[in-house]
Amino acid sequence: MAKALIQMALDSLDFDVTMGLAEQVAPYVDILEIGTPCIKANGVELVKALNAAHPNKLILVDLKTMDAGEYEATPFYEAGGDIATVLGAADMATIGGVIKAANASNAEAQVDLIGVNDKAGVAAAAAKMGAHIIGVHTGLDAQAAGQTPFADLNTIAGLGLDVRISVAGGINKDTIQSTVQAGATIVVVGAAIYGADSPADSAKELRALVDAA
Amino acid sequence: MAKALIQMALDSLDFDVTMGLAEQVAPYVDILEIGTPCIKANGVELVKALNAAHPNKLILVDLKTMDAGEYEATPFYEAGGDIATVLGAADMATIGGVIKAANASNAEAQVDLIGVNDKAGVAAAAAKMGAHIIGVHTGLDAQAAGQTPFADLNTIAGLGLDVRISVAGGINKDTIQSTVQAGATIVVVGAAIYGADSPADSAKELRALVDAA
Repeated sequence: MAKALIQMALDSLDFDVTMGLAEQVAPYVDILEIGTPCIKANGVELVKALNAAHPNKLILVDLKTMDAGEYEATPFYEAGGDIATVLGAADMATIGGVIKAANASNAEAQVDLIGVNDKAGVAAAAAKMGAHIIGVHTGLDAQAAGQTPFADLNTIAGLGLDVRISVAGGINKDTIQSTVQAGATIVVVGAAIYGADSPADSAKELRALVDAA
Repeated sequence: MAKALIQMALDSLDFDVTMGLAEQVAPYVDILEIGTPCIKANGVELVKALNAAHPNKLILVDLKTMDAGEYEATPFYEAGGDIATVLGAADMATIGGVIKAANASNAEAQVDLIGVNDKAGVAAAAAKMGAHIIGVHTGLDAQAAGQTPFADLNTIAGLGLDVRISVAGGINKDTIQSTVQAGATIVVVGAAIYGADSPADSAKELRALVDAA
């Protein structure tokens, strides 16, 4: 089994802070994620800058697209995004549009199950449509209310779909190994790194934990 | 009864095209909307530029926020946005966060019912939470499949909530008056204007129709 990938969520709103944090953690992570508030604040230029600075890292643009899938996602793939996200709560035509845009750039589409009631049904339908990654995701506002993504991970992993599974929602050093063992092929970390005294040291520690999982 | 407002959806991905189209139609519309793909591509600088060029127009930023409501919306209100949107499909805590951010800037939050199954229930809950505007919205991908927002407008208008109702989804000169008569206080037009030979002439025509409705 391939080792799991680590994705770093860049959640600042500031262009330079985002570039600086990426620089610190890049040696230890596989995917640099431009978070939704960050991409909305900074626009597609940030994708270009991050891609130029880190040509050997995967770039995920967390668009959380809800409509106009192909139209919205295309410029971000063309700017160097390797993965873009679309909401599982969106119309299936919107999900299909992002998958089409991804395939046109030899890139990947991730369907984010945040806020979806029938997670198993949407995941199966999206996989059938050609989605590359299913994102099991407890949002920041839901985390603040005490929720976690782990039960949903078990549900989705149990479906045996031909997709990679990404898990996000407050993962830290205490939960990252069990998340990988439960079937996550991409683990997303954010606050566990950028909230640490040394983001680089924290990223290095998480890398070791994932590689040993 | 106050006259209905006209909102122009600026759906280009290009900064300069967006500024140019706004300039053409501004004399005839009340609200300049920065569409979701446009804000993601261009970032918050576009809000500042549009606000500086049109200080007497309302600026709507179609964020379609799904998580981290207060955090994501705040910079757009601070940049001059008068209205920001949040998805009705989001967690109620996220909707509450955008409302909080709006109130902190003496601005408004619009809850977009796109993709929501229980539209009446979400509209009522959002209104109770303090949402200023409810958006009845058939997305571009759903419009391509032949859907319209008019049945949903009747449902939401029938609730008698203490909110304004915005309607979007392929409204044109043939449907704009009946949309206002059915209870829309904001009518959103996009393709009917930017797809016309003369966007300014089309906007002028729609203005006359709304004012006579």
